[in-house]
Amino acid sequence: MKSYTRVAHFGLGVIGVEAIKALADKPWANIVGAIDVDPAKVGRSLGEITGVGKLAGISVVPTLEELLTTVQPDVIVHAAGSSAAISFEQIEPMVRRGISVVSSCEQLLFPALREPAHTRQIHSLCMENKAGIVGTGVNPGFVMDVLPLTLTGVCRSVRHIYVEREVNASTRRMQLQKKIGSGMPPAEFRALFAAGKAGHAGFAESAAMICHCMGWENPKISETCQPIVASRKIQTEFFTVPEGRTSGLHQVVTATVDGLERLKMDLKMHLDAANPHDAIQITGSPSLNVMIDGGVAGDVATVAAMVNAIPRLQKAGPGLHLMTDLPVPVMH
Amino acid sequence: MKSYTRVAHFGLGVIGVEAIKALADKPWANIVGAIDVDPAKVGRSLGEITGVGKLAGISVVPTLEELLTTVQPDVIVHAAGSSAAISFEQIEPMVRRGISVVSSCEQLLFPALREPAHTRQIHSLCMENKAGIVGTGVNPGFVMDVLPLTLTGVCRSVRHIYVEREVNASTRRMQLQKKIGSGMPPAEFRALFAAGKAGHAGFAESAAMICHCMGWENPKISETCQPIVASRKIQTEFFTVPEGRTSGLHQVVTATVDGLERLKMDLKMHLDAANPHDAIQITGSPSLNVMIDGGVAGDVATVAAMVNAIPRLQKAGPGLHLMTDLPVPVMH
Repeated sequence: MKSYTRVAHFGLGVIGVEAIKALADKPWANIVGAIDVDPAKVGRSLGEITGVGKLAGISVVPTLEELLTTVQPDVIVHAAGSSAAISFEQIEPMVRRGISVVSSCEQLLFPALREPAHTRQIHSLCMENKAGIVGTGVNPGFVMDVLPLTLTGVCRSVRHIYVEREVNASTRRMQLQKKIGSGMPPAEFRALFAAGKAGHAGFAESAAMICHCMGWENPKISETCQPIVASRKIQTEFFTVPEGRTSGLHQVVTATVDGLERLKMDLKMHLDAANPHDAIQITGSPSLNVMIDGGVAGDVATVAAMVNAIPRLQKAGPGLHLMTDLPVPVMH
Repeated sequence: MKSYTRVAHFGLGVIGVEAIKALADKPWANIVGAIDVDPAKVGRSLGEITGVGKLAGISVVPTLEELLTTVQPDVIVHAAGSSAAISFEQIEPMVRRGISVVSSCEQLLFPALREPAHTRQIHSLCMENKAGIVGTGVNPGFVMDVLPLTLTGVCRSVRHIYVEREVNASTRRMQLQKKIGSGMPPAEFRALFAAGKAGHAGFAESAAMICHCMGWENPKISETCQPIVASRKIQTEFFTVPEGRTSGLHQVVTATVDGLERLKMDLKMHLDAANPHDAIQITGSPSLNVMIDGGVAGDVATVAAMVNAIPRLQKAGPGLHLMTDLPVPVMH
């Protein structure tokens, strides 16, 4: 009987590298390999890329096929973008080889929203090949979806769910500061959001997952996003934002069912946010009013969510799962 | 393929009756029978006892054997006391017949604490007979154990967990007001607690479950309970408490591992509590600071937790489960 899970990694961006560092501390995990398409990373030592000495003997390879010539992972940690369609293309060959996948891909939180046919097909492949898939993270994946849903576990009935998250992007990584439009003319940010090229990914997926779990059928999900404009010059480690330029975003999603609003989610991610927090209000029997002072820290929590999902995904068995299909999230 | 779950009930106290009312509203559940040992209830109509008209044709029977002469439930909702040993005696014949059990028995939250051998034996019986068991409720079962554990799902590491709950017992049922010692001389309450006959049941079980899930091995769990003394006369629907008599309890449990405190839980349940709330503080990476303003309402939430656990227990398959083994709690 093996006493650990053999884990390989697909995607060595910030989240991928942090996931490796976190997993290297876990007695139940054995990191066996890493894949990245970036030629600047291929062939380099994983020990060198991550700073984890014991991984010095592992070289980054460019493809799954090459990885499988030397090792057979149980699970691949996939951290390579937000698109369900692209992630499915990358994940399908893993599933065909019976390898389970924990992904940070935002749209994989609830892939049926954008890729219903592909979702069914990949689920069937999972069942055939005894592999599991789950998409997770802190948001989407926890604060604005799994945690509110968990709270409904002590409700007899739920009329409305409201979730609010305000993130101080000044404390976050460069990619996130860029994603929220830092320094951009507001009109340019609006145009980018309209083109699907800016904003918080996976927000509609959070809403769709909540509606699905609550049994709210055929929800009408609407999403808006406005730039937050700097009222004075803001300087971060990565960006200088003059007054009048974009310093963040204010994104709102609502779900209405039969003309009645059942869900509203309000997200602000901006530089120099003075009062970062998460808040959840369930209106029902009983009603619940939850505040997380300071909020749930983004990057650390996303990495932790992925790492902690591995043992639970293995316990859940084959299939393309939602986070809510897995056992209760717990640190492993 | 059947489209509903056939549910029977064991124990028709306040929680049992409320669970029936809640289940009667659920399209996925079909209430097929009820057992109670109380001769005053046997033979009476479940419709009359619960006020749910459509249950008029169901008569309360005194034993499982008699129930099984007419119906075959998939699940029994067990609400008949706090002792794991006694509950196991009641549940064993159900499991032997392949019937799964959701129980409000506080010690069944983590039965291995007091009944390790019996727990293993009942788990084996569950596996043999393809039945599942889970103990749940709002506390123990959610606020002070499952919810803090859920929050650790986004933590890389956890050094300490603190949970605080203050309940305004004035809004609760008679049994709870009695359980917290309302009106008793403080010395008498202390003696009753020392004899294991007063206080909040299942508190050490909450602590043991948290330690188990966190991987904190061989915890030393200590529990204290002091009466809260009325500083003026308090009048409730059920009790008159003169000044100087007990108006509630203050119960504290800690868990230390290798001399280091890892967990502290602080529970106040008392009459006329001005600021009912639940609070959770996780110290780790990241730290989390959660406040539930007003707290999670006790009786409604306990009933909801039981009802909502039924579909998840069926999904989890055979075995004596912890709440954390089941999929994420969600309203069903």
